[in-house]
Amino acid sequence: MGHTPTTARGRATRGRILDAAADLIQRHGVAAVTLDAVERAAGVGRSQLYHYFDDRDDLIRSVVHATVDKVLAAQEPLLLEVGSLAGIERWFDAIVANGTRQDAVGGCAIGSLASQLGGQDELTRQAFVDAFARWEAPLIAGLRWMQESGELRPDVDVTELADLTMAAIQGGLLLAQIRRTPDQLRHALNGARAALKDALTSPP
Amino acid sequence: MGHTPTTARGRATRGRILDAAADLIQRHGVAAVTLDAVERAAGVGRSQLYHYFDDRDDLIRSVVHATVDKVLAAQEPLLLEVGSLAGIERWFDAIVANGTRQDAVGGCAIGSLASQLGGQDELTRQAFVDAFARWEAPLIAGLRWMQESGELRPDVDVTELADLTMAAIQGGLLLAQIRRTPDQLRHALNGARAALKDALTSPP
Repeated sequence: MGHTPTTARGRATRGRILDAAADLIQRHGVAAVTLDAVERAAGVGRSQLYHYFDDRDDLIRSVVHATVDKVLAAQEPLLLEVGSLAGIERWFDAIVANGTRQDAVGGCAIGSLASQLGGQDELTRQAFVDAFARWEAPLIAGLRWMQESGELRPDVDVTELADLTMAAIQGGLLLAQIRRTPDQLRHALNGARAALKDALTSPP
Repeated sequence: MGHTPTTARGRATRGRILDAAADLIQRHGVAAVTLDAVERAAGVGRSQLYHYFDDRDDLIRSVVHATVDKVLAAQEPLLLEVGSLAGIERWFDAIVANGTRQDAVGGCAIGSLASQLGGQDELTRQAFVDAFARWEAPLIAGLRWMQESGELRPDVDVTELADLTMAAIQGGLLLAQIRRTPDQLRHALNGARAALKDALTSPP
């Protein structure tokens, strides 16, 4: 890993490089990320690039981590509430509303990166494994809390329930992106909703 | 659109070009698809390429259609059976088994292409809209049949049910690809399974 910036100016430069690389990936795919293109887009030189990143692979993996940081920061207030059916419903509503706001064009930044990069190399795949684990952790914790407090049946596998919810979000975002309508995301989440209601001790 | 080949030799050449482009996209992303690279990989010249495809965009959209043809051809026998809960379960099992066989590395060929290309241009996006519609059509027909024969409740929106199933497959394949385990696909399909059972006139 390259140097971690210690000054505000350094953090800004590193952030500008990451934003430029993320933008290139989103608009033209990962093969478009050449060091030349990143330098041009970020307005930095090769020595600055190499100060913060070991090489192109390190830069791309850093984009993955930065993207997860952004997605999680945006969802954090709602993810704190997923310890109840009502809290999970509010989180779902926010995901659908977000899909609407962006005109459902961008899809999921992490999922889209993962589809492109997941099969590349082991370190990059591992970055996505970590990314999805970080995203899923608050949901697993919330579901476990619901189980411990008796809201979910004791025989329910909360990890499986969290997995299917993550899959519904990812698949729903992909279809919403293609079909340009957030309905797809709402429909997708109905599967997770049905599984969640099945898992309740007393059906609503 | 370029010429449709009328001879076996022509079909073979066009197919070789499509395979080469699909392979480049899968291994290096869509930005790696230059006409030079496709010609080298397929062992054809520029004039042959332009005989079958108008330009690079036409080639890429043709890859989308060819990929859907392959996925649907592989699933066709099972898709004919999705007019019952048992038939849908067999289709789900085959999808999971397929994820296992490929070591869950490739993910969904259509979904992976869609994540990369869905936001590019309107004609390409439309190719994916058509692709998902063709894939979803037998499922919608099967669910409608189940509704007409009284197996599904009359108030169930079969299109929504099909949408959430497609989303579960796509999201599950993405997570299975990242986590390198087909369990993720099995878990993802449990959401669709729960929604499907909720829709039955008499719960199993």
